[in-house]
Amino acid sequence: MNDYAFCVPTDIRFGRGQIECLDKEIGKYGRKVLLVYGGGSIKKTGLYDKVYEVLKDHEIYELPGIEPNPKITSVRKGVEICKEKGIDVILAVGGGSVIDASKHIACGTFYDGDPWDMVLDRSLVTKALPVFTVLTICATGSEMNPGAVISNEMTKEKLEINHPLLYPTLSVCDPTYLFTLPASQTAAGTADIISHIFEQYFQPNDGAYLTDRFSEAALKTCFKYGPIAMKEPDNYEARSNLMWCSSIALNHLLTFGKGGGWSVHPMEHELSAFYDITHGVGLAILTPAWMRYILNDDTKKRFAMYAKNVWDVIEEDDLKAAVKGIELTEGFFKSLGLPSRLSDVGIDDSRLAEMAAEAVRTSTLKTRAYVKLDASDVEQIYRNCLY
Amino acid sequence: MNDYAFCVPTDIRFGRGQIECLDKEIGKYGRKVLLVYGGGSIKKTGLYDKVYEVLKDHEIYELPGIEPNPKITSVRKGVEICKEKGIDVILAVGGGSVIDASKHIACGTFYDGDPWDMVLDRSLVTKALPVFTVLTICATGSEMNPGAVISNEMTKEKLEINHPLLYPTLSVCDPTYLFTLPASQTAAGTADIISHIFEQYFQPNDGAYLTDRFSEAALKTCFKYGPIAMKEPDNYEARSNLMWCSSIALNHLLTFGKGGGWSVHPMEHELSAFYDITHGVGLAILTPAWMRYILNDDTKKRFAMYAKNVWDVIEEDDLKAAVKGIELTEGFFKSLGLPSRLSDVGIDDSRLAEMAAEAVRTSTLKTRAYVKLDASDVEQIYRNCLY
Repeated sequence: MNDYAFCVPTDIRFGRGQIECLDKEIGKYGRKVLLVYGGGSIKKTGLYDKVYEVLKDHEIYELPGIEPNPKITSVRKGVEICKEKGIDVILAVGGGSVIDASKHIACGTFYDGDPWDMVLDRSLVTKALPVFTVLTICATGSEMNPGAVISNEMTKEKLEINHPLLYPTLSVCDPTYLFTLPASQTAAGTADIISHIFEQYFQPNDGAYLTDRFSEAALKTCFKYGPIAMKEPDNYEARSNLMWCSSIALNHLLTFGKGGGWSVHPMEHELSAFYDITHGVGLAILTPAWMRYILNDDTKKRFAMYAKNVWDVIEEDDLKAAVKGIELTEGFFKSLGLPSRLSDVGIDDSRLAEMAAEAVRTSTLKTRAYVKLDASDVEQIYRNCLY
Repeated sequence: MNDYAFCVPTDIRFGRGQIECLDKEIGKYGRKVLLVYGGGSIKKTGLYDKVYEVLKDHEIYELPGIEPNPKITSVRKGVEICKEKGIDVILAVGGGSVIDASKHIACGTFYDGDPWDMVLDRSLVTKALPVFTVLTICATGSEMNPGAVISNEMTKEKLEINHPLLYPTLSVCDPTYLFTLPASQTAAGTADIISHIFEQYFQPNDGAYLTDRFSEAALKTCFKYGPIAMKEPDNYEARSNLMWCSSIALNHLLTFGKGGGWSVHPMEHELSAFYDITHGVGLAILTPAWMRYILNDDTKKRFAMYAKNVWDVIEEDDLKAAVKGIELTEGFFKSLGLPSRLSDVGIDDSRLAEMAAEAVRTSTLKTRAYVKLDASDVEQIYRNCLY
C-alpha cells in the first residue's frame, strides 16, 4: 500500500429536502451569492425558484449558461462579477460543468491575471471563495473533490486545475433532483462514474486490498443501478446509490494507497476538446478499446480479478476471465444505449494523430499510466474504436 | 437509503515516516503541546524519542499514564495542565484510549465545570483545542471520528461524548508502528474493528446498497489480514490494510444512508465498566451470542447476505446460511485466540442483571437497535455466553 494523504472536508448533505440548509449554512459566509447554472433546465424543474425561496434573505447575482465542457470564457465572466460585486459565496446548481466552472471562478477572484494562467500553474491558487453546490447530475464527483476541468476554446485545450482550496464547502445531494434527468444523461453519467473507478482500480499496486474491494463495490453499484435509473427515473434507491457512488468514485477514497496516472480520461479529454462530445459518451467508447489494448501477461491478473469479483465470472484461466470481463463491460455500455464507435459521434480519422499527441503531451500517459502509452499507442486505441 | 450528513475533516497522513509532518502542521496552531500517552510502551519502541526529535522547537508538557478504558480522573488532570500552561495543541500518541482522553481534554479546557458534565450533556461542548494523533494501535477508529468513550470509576459508567468539534485535526497513521504490537492486542483490536462494522451493517435499511458492499469489503479485510498480522507482526500489507480499515470502520462511511442504534457495544461497555476487561475481548465474546439471539425470520435474510457475500457460503436456505455465517464468525474469533465465554475473563453471574439494566439505561438498545432489546434480553445474552 502506497503512502497517502487523505483529507476531504466537504460537508455532504444527502437526501430529500436538504436544500433547506442553505440559508443558514451560506449565511455563515455572507449575504452576496453568485448563482451559477447551466442551460436553464433548473427553471423547468422548479429548482431555480426553490433556490430563490430558500435564499430570500440573500442578495443573488447570476451567471447562467455554463456549457457542458465549461469554457474559460465563462470563468472569466464569473470572476468579473465576483470582483465587481464583492461576492461572498458561489452557489453552483447543476452538474460537474457548473461546479467546475464555479471552483475556477472561486480562486480566479483572488488572482489579478487571466484565470487560464492558474490551470497552467496551480501555485497561483492562494485563496478561494467558498463554493456551495446543489447537484443535479451525478457523474463527475466534483461535488466532493478539489478538481475542475476547464476548456480553452482558443487553444483547444481541456485541462484540470486541482487544489485543496477548491473542495466545495457544502454539497446538497438530493436524489430526487435526478428524477427529471433524461435517460441519455443518466447513461453518460453512469459511464463517467464507472470510468473514474476504473482509472483508480487499474493500477499496479496489489497491496491496497481494502481500496480494491471498495472499487469493486462501487462498480457493482453502477452496474446494478444504472439500468434501473434509466428505466425508472424516479426510483429513489437507484438514484441515491448512484448519486453517492459518484461522489465516492472521485473523492480519493478509491485511490487510497494506490495512486498512478489516469489513462482513458486524458484520451477522452481530447475528443471533447476537439469535437465537443459528451464526456461520458467518449469514455464509454474508449474504455473497452483501451482495456483490450493493454491486456497482456502483466495485467491479465487484475483484469481477471475484476471479472471475477464484479461480474462473478467463473473461469480458471486469467486471460480468458479477463477477456470475458472486458466483453461484459462493453456489453453493459451498449445496454445503456451508449455509442460504441467514434464514428457514431461524428469523429473521423482526420485528427486522430493530432489528438493522440495532445493527449500524451498534456497528461502522464507516457510516464505514470497503468500501462504507459505514447502517442502511437493512443492513436491506435482511437483507431481501434473508430468504426 | 436514509438521509445523511457526512463531513469528515480529519487530515489523514498514512504511511512510513509521516510523523515528520508534525513540526510544520502543529506549528500552524502554536508552540505549546500537551503530549498524552499511555503506559510507556512508546518509550520502549523509540516513538517517544522520535516525537521529541520532530518537535524539538516546541514546548512540550506531558500527561502520561492514560489507562485502557480511559478515566475521567485522567481527563481532569489533562484539563488542569491545559488551562494552567496555556496549551495550544494536544498530541495523542497511542490507541483509542489515549485519543479519546485527549479529545475530552480538548473540549474540557474551554469549560469551567467538571468535564464529566460534558459527557452527560454535549451542548456544553462549545470549543476545543486541536487534537493531533499518532496511532499505535488500530481498533477504535478514534483517529478519524468525533467520538470519545470515557469511564467514570466512581459511578461505574462508561459513556460516549460525541461532537463535530472533536474530529482530530490530523492523524499520523504509520503502519510500521503496529509491528511491535503483541498478538493479543492485534486480536482484540481486530475484534473491535469487526464489531464496529457489524453494528452498522446489521441494521434494517436494505436500500443502502453501496454502504452494505463497503461494509462487506471492510469485513473481508479484517478476516483476511487479522490472522496474518498476528503471525507476521511486521507484514506491512496486513498492518496497513487493518490500519486503514480501522479508520474506515468508524468514520461514518459505513453507516451512510443507514443509521440505527448499536447493540453489542453498549452491552460490552458494562463489562469493561464493571470488570475493566479489554473492550475487544468483550466484543468477541458477546457478538456470536447476540447474533444467535436476534436471528429470526425478519433478520435471517441479512445474516444470510453476510454469510454469502463475506464468507462465500453457498446455501440456498437463508436460515441455514445465516447460522453458518454466525459459526464462521465465532470460529474466526477463536482462531485469533480470543476468549469466548465471560467466565474466561473472570465474570460470573453475580452482576449480570445489574449490568443489563445499565446497558439498557445508558443506550438506545430498547429504542433504536436492529432488534430492540430490553434488560431481560440483555441479561439472557450475557447468560448465553457465560460458561
